[in-house]
Order: sequence, then structure tokens, then C-alpha cells
Amino acid sequence: MLTIYAHISNKSLTFISITYFQVYATGNSNKKIMAICGRIYLKNFTHIHVILQRNQILYRSIYNTPSTNILNIEMETEKKAFCQELPKIINLLKENPKFLEMPEVGNWIQKMLQYNLVGGKNARGLTTVISYKMIEKENKITDESLRLARTLGWCVEMFQAYCVILDDIMDGSTTRRGMPCWYCKPDVGLACAINDSIIVYSTLFQVLKDNFMMSPNYVNMFQLFNETLWFTALGQHLDYITAQRKQYNLFTLDRYYTMIKHKASYYTYYLPVSLGLLLVESVEKEMFKQGNDICLEIGKLFQIQDDYIDCFGDESVTGKVGTDIQEGKCTWLAVNALLRCNEAQRIVFKSCYGSKEPAHVERIKQLYIQLRLPEIYQERENSLYKDILELTTKIPDPASQKLYRYILNTTYKRKQ
Amino acid sequence: MLTIYAHISNKSLTFISITYFQVYATGNSNKKIMAICGRIYLKNFTHIHVILQRNQILYRSIYNTPSTNILNIEMETEKKAFCQELPKIINLLKENPKFLEMPEVGNWIQKMLQYNLVGGKNARGLTTVISYKMIEKENKITDESLRLARTLGWCVEMFQAYCVILDDIMDGSTTRRGMPCWYCKPDVGLACAINDSIIVYSTLFQVLKDNFMMSPNYVNMFQLFNETLWFTALGQHLDYITAQRKQYNLFTLDRYYTMIKHKASYYTYYLPVSLGLLLVESVEKEMFKQGNDICLEIGKLFQIQDDYIDCFGDESVTGKVGTDIQEGKCTWLAVNALLRCNEAQRIVFKSCYGSKEPAHVERIKQLYIQLRLPEIYQERENSLYKDILELTTKIPDPASQKLYRYILNTTYKRKQ
Repeated sequence: MLTIYAHISNKSLTFISITYFQVYATGNSNKKIMAICGRIYLKNFTHIHVILQRNQILYRSIYNTPSTNILNIEMETEKKAFCQELPKIINLLKENPKFLEMPEVGNWIQKMLQYNLVGGKNARGLTTVISYKMIEKENKITDESLRLARTLGWCVEMFQAYCVILDDIMDGSTTRRGMPCWYCKPDVGLACAINDSIIVYSTLFQVLKDNFMMSPNYVNMFQLFNETLWFTALGQHLDYITAQRKQYNLFTLDRYYTMIKHKASYYTYYLPVSLGLLLVESVEKEMFKQGNDICLEIGKLFQIQDDYIDCFGDESVTGKVGTDIQEGKCTWLAVNALLRCNEAQRIVFKSCYGSKEPAHVERIKQLYIQLRLPEIYQERENSLYKDILELTTKIPDPASQKLYRYILNTTYKRKQ
Repeated sequence: MLTIYAHISNKSLTFISITYFQVYATGNSNKKIMAICGRIYLKNFTHIHVILQRNQILYRSIYNTPSTNILNIEMETEKKAFCQELPKIINLLKENPKFLEMPEVGNWIQKMLQYNLVGGKNARGLTTVISYKMIEKENKITDESLRLARTLGWCVEMFQAYCVILDDIMDGSTTRRGMPCWYCKPDVGLACAINDSIIVYSTLFQVLKDNFMMSPNYVNMFQLFNETLWFTALGQHLDYITAQRKQYNLFTLDRYYTMIKHKASYYTYYLPVSLGLLLVESVEKEMFKQGNDICLEIGKLFQIQDDYIDCFGDESVTGKVGTDIQEGKCTWLAVNALLRCNEAQRIVFKSCYGSKEPAHVERIKQLYIQLRLPEIYQERENSLYKDILELTTKIPDPASQKLYRYILNTTYKRKQ
């Protein structure tokens, strides 16, 4: 038996999720509870003791230990500093002499960047900063190096904004982060939004040039951005053709994994982590390879979650309305439904999937529930988490291990 | 008096346009003609004598001299070699291990690149090759350096294809080069076309990396592409907001010139010429500045022509249907109409411009004709040509002079 004591010091932490393990917690009320599975609300507890049987894998719960809490607090501070950097980047950009010729265009860019960059989780941008901060030697971290890391993080966010603006058009989405998609706003529209996406993407490289032109890794940075864009678009194409054909024998797990690796994992994890590593003064090549392997696995977890949330997520939390069923996308849910359904259910799937008819969409959701996909999803999410955690134990460098575990934990059990 | 004799050796040359100057021509029929202005059909003539008064500017006609004819023949040969390079580039690209994972995506890219790159004039791509060939020392030009120049030319064509695919969506165009716009094809559609535009753009940089990563100018090339994209999108935005607002007091020549410089001149002339110069082994910085100045002027001529052709061009020649009036664009014609119209005509303009109603579009065309804009356009085209030719006389390097004159002459009097 293994016992872990954790002091609940972070008041923003309201509960922990426990899966499978026995958990004892003590607190103000001096009450002791035991759970096999479920949530423990922490308001009454000041300590948790997580008791695990030997050889079992440590779940997320045990990362709600003091050191993780400190990390969470640090992240909140970092997010604040990160957000404070954006207006400075935009102001510097607006000093470009081009905007003396076209002041209205400068003002538009400011407004457009703010709408499309602010208000999200900024997870990808923050990952760049965090990767840098966790891997760089402490005595090398200066105000200037942090400014650069945050600037590079905002470049990642611009990359994301470019993809998001176009993705919303391509998917015919209407809301994003609880607000209208950029192209849906009455003063924007389709044509202007497409052009704005180009402005965002090319602005990214103007910012990169202004800040990193003298860096020995400048070329690596822009190559990384471009290669990631290439992979993402290739993955998106595979996504389209798979959905378009309505040949459900193509909805295999193999094809699904190839697709999501390209369309999501590279740009959600590999890009921001590798950019962070490129800022570190001396970093071994091997670390990029290691980052690639683990980032693609975390990306897999992320995209499976994304597919689940698109269908079963809480719209008030996600701020967007799912469209995967309507578009007939090859999702984790669709692939697993097809793997598990009987002949009659397969006929239902074929006749309702890829339809915009609300009754058809509802029928597919019912089918997913009939097939116990929400439960199977929970199991898959847990087992993937376990596998990736196992992977991190093989990383010799403690700082890298900490980094990837942190990234894994911010992904696991996410609701948006 | 200055007399220029020109032997008409190129049979594809069927007429010369003469503006203002006295021209004598002799030929098979032994007839002598004199023209102040107009076209001389060449089928009966083997020689032309262009007689100019001292200090007058030499017009296009005199470039139909043997050396220009040789240049034209050379260009035809070059276009053939240029076109033969594309399949090699695509085949090399398809060897990327990524396509082992996703063979269908590789096949799609091949098909998509062929549709969007082949069949046009390839003017921008050829400009890169020609710029290199004209400026580089003859003993430095090798099969390999030509292969690289053509590859870089195709990168320019990919840049153009990226802009064109999106531009057609933004403008709601339906045909391009006499074929359906990419997004209008039944097996493509809006979403796939947007993603394909991203594939084209990121493929450009994969090709650039594969071929130029070791070049000392790799970074400059990359930056030039991105800066050009930035300028183009900023200009496009100015174009949109000017059209959108329907505040016709904004339709000024100043604003028009700022807009077209950014949205067209940089990418049509400055980008391909500068890339060609970057391939030359030793080139002075001053040449880029000089190229910038003259390219922006040729770009002005090009865009004014573009605006004219959009309204008055021959659809069977251009292969596309104009949409500027319908979209209420700030064009050379609109700006000049507003400069010249009386109060009644201004009311007509305001009520019909920016409408998709065919009768309104026709009414605007009539107004343009009433205001003699086609004649004023001819004069403006000629005077711009004259001014740019004058600019080229100030270039000390004969090779550069020859290059810019060639580019100017391929632009002047174009019909598509």
C-alpha cells in the first residue's frame, strides 16, 4: 500500500476526481471519506490521503499535491503576464511605417487581433512559455528572455487564430468561445474574414522577424511554423475526404489516428513545446524527438476529448455548438460506434449520420449512448492518461518529465 | 530626327501599335505607310522604320525590333522549359514520407496543384526566371542554377495560386482562365478549397526549404514572400473597407494608389523580380531599391489595366467575368468617373454602383462611356508607359534597363 498526503492549499481547487482508487480525505469537519470513484469536493477538507495499491498507476488526483498547486498558482500568474504582453506586441506592430500610409488598416488589425486572440484559454501560447520556463536553467531566465518567450507564445496564438478563423468558415460554425465566429459578425463577413486570416498569419511572421531575426534559431522557428501548417492542412484534407465519401468502411481507428495526429497533435502540442525548447540556450536534439513522441500521444488524448466534447460537451462551458455529426466527420465516437454496433444499429447510423436534421442528430446521440460510448470514452481517456504517464517515467531529465506531466494534466479531464 | 529600322522576323507578331509618332513601314507589297496613331498590320511589311523627333520618348513600337523579337522567341522557349519543371517539383514533393501515411492526400495535392498552376500565363513565375537570366553573368548560368530559378518561379506561382483560390471565394467569382474557379468545382467546394489554399501556401515553403535551405539568401526569400503576403492582405483590406462603406468621397486617386500598390504591385512585380535578383551571385543592395521603385510603377500600370479589363475586357480572352461594379470596388474607372461626372451623373453613380442588378451594372458601363473613360484610359496607359520608360533610362546598368523594359513591354497593351 502506498499513501500520499496532500495539503489542499489552493482555494481555487474545488474538487478532485477519483477514478478506481480508494481515497481518504480529512479536513475542517474532521470527517473522513472513502471513495472508489467520483468527485470529492474539497471545501471541507484540508488534507487528502490517496492510498494506492502498489504497482497501480498514479492518477490525476495525486497531482493535486502542494507542488502541483504551486504550479497552478504560477500558471495563473504567468497567464496574467502573458496577457499583458499582447497590447505591447500590437502597439509595436502598429508602429510599422506601413500604417502611416493606411491608419485605418492599423486600427482594424488591432481590433481584429484582440477579438480573435483574447478570451480563449491561450493554452497553446502558454505551453510555449511554460516549456521555456521549465526547461531553461533558472539563471538564464531574464525579463527579456521571458518577454521573448511570451512573444513567441503569442505567435503560436496567432497561428491558432488563423486556423480558427478559417476552420469556423469551413465547418459553418456560428459561435466560438461563446461569441459569434469572426466571419459571422455583421461588420466582417466571409470575404473580410478570409483576408483577415491572411493578415493574422503574415503578421505572425512580421512579429517573429521583429523579435527573433538575430536568433540562431530564427530559421528553425519559421520552418517549424510552416511544417506544422502543412501537416495540419494535410490532416484536415484527410478529415474532409473521409467525411465526404460516406464510405463508413473508411472509418477505421488507423485512419482516425493518422488524421488526428496531423490535423491536431502537431499544432496543439508539438509546435508550442518545440518553440519553447528553441528558446532554451542549450538543448539537445534528442529532446525534440522525445517531445515529438510524447506530444503526439497527448495530442491523441486531446482530439479524442475534442470529439467527445463536440457531441456531449456542455455548450455553456465550451462556448461552441458541435457540428461533427452534421458534417459526417470521422470522429472517435463514430469510429467506435461502427466498431460496436449491430446490423440494425449500423442501418440507423448510415441513414442519420452526416445529416443536419435535428432529429437525425439526436438519433445518433441516442445510438452513442445505447452503445455505452460515454462510459467507454471515460475508460479510454483514463487508459490513455495512464499510458502517457507511463511514457513520461522513461524521460531521464526531471525538468522534461515535470513539463510533460504538467501538459498532460492540463489536458486530462478538460471540459472545453 | 531619329530613324529606327526593324526587321519583322517573328511571324507571331501581327501588328504594332503606334501612338503619336510618325511611322513608315515597307514590306512585300512595297507599300509605304505613314501613321500618327493606330495599328499597323504587319502581314504586308517586312521592315518598319520608326521615325521619332529628337527628345521624344521611344514607344512600344520600336521594341518590336529584331532584339525584342529574339527576346520573345527566347521567352517562348523559356516558358516551355519552365512548364516542364513543374511535374518534377510535384514528383519530388510526393516523395515526402508523409504521403506514405496518406497516399490519397498526395494524389489530391498533385491534382489540385495542376489545376491551379497550369494553364495561366505564368507571368509572375516567368518574371523570376527572366530576372535571374538577364541579370546573372552568362558564365554563372548553369543547368542547376536554371533549375533553381524555375523552381523559385513555381514558388511564386504557388503564392499566386494561394491568392487566386481565396480571391475567387472572396469576390464570389465563378470562372478563372475560362474554367470554373477551384471552389466552384463540384468535387471541391468552399471548405475544401480554403484548406487547399493553405496546402498550396505551405507547400511553397516546403519546396523552398527542399531547394534553398543551404542558400545564403534562404531567409531573405522567406521574408520576402511573407512581407509580400502581408502587404497584399493589407491592401486587400483597404480595398474592402473602401468598397463596403459606399462613401464615395473616399474614392480618391491617393487612396486608390496606396491600395493598388499594396494589393497588386508588390506581389505581381516586386516579389518575382526580387527573388530573381536573390539568385544572382553578386548583386548590389541598391538594385533591390531600384527594382522596388520601378516595379511599383509597372504595378500601377498593371492594376489600372486590370480595372479597365474587368469592365471592358473581352471575356473570351480574359477567361473571367468582371465583378468590380457589382462589388462597388474603388477602381480606376470609378475614381475617374467620380472626378469627371456632373451632379446628375453622380446621382446615377450612387444609385447604381455596387449593385448586382444587371441593369445597374449596364448603366454604370454606359456612364463610363459617356464620360469618355475608355479614351481617357488609353491616354493614361500611354502616358504611364512613357513615364516608366523614362524611369528606365535612369538605370545605369544596361542589363537591368533591358529587364525592366522587357517587363514593361509585356505589361503594356495586355488584354488579359
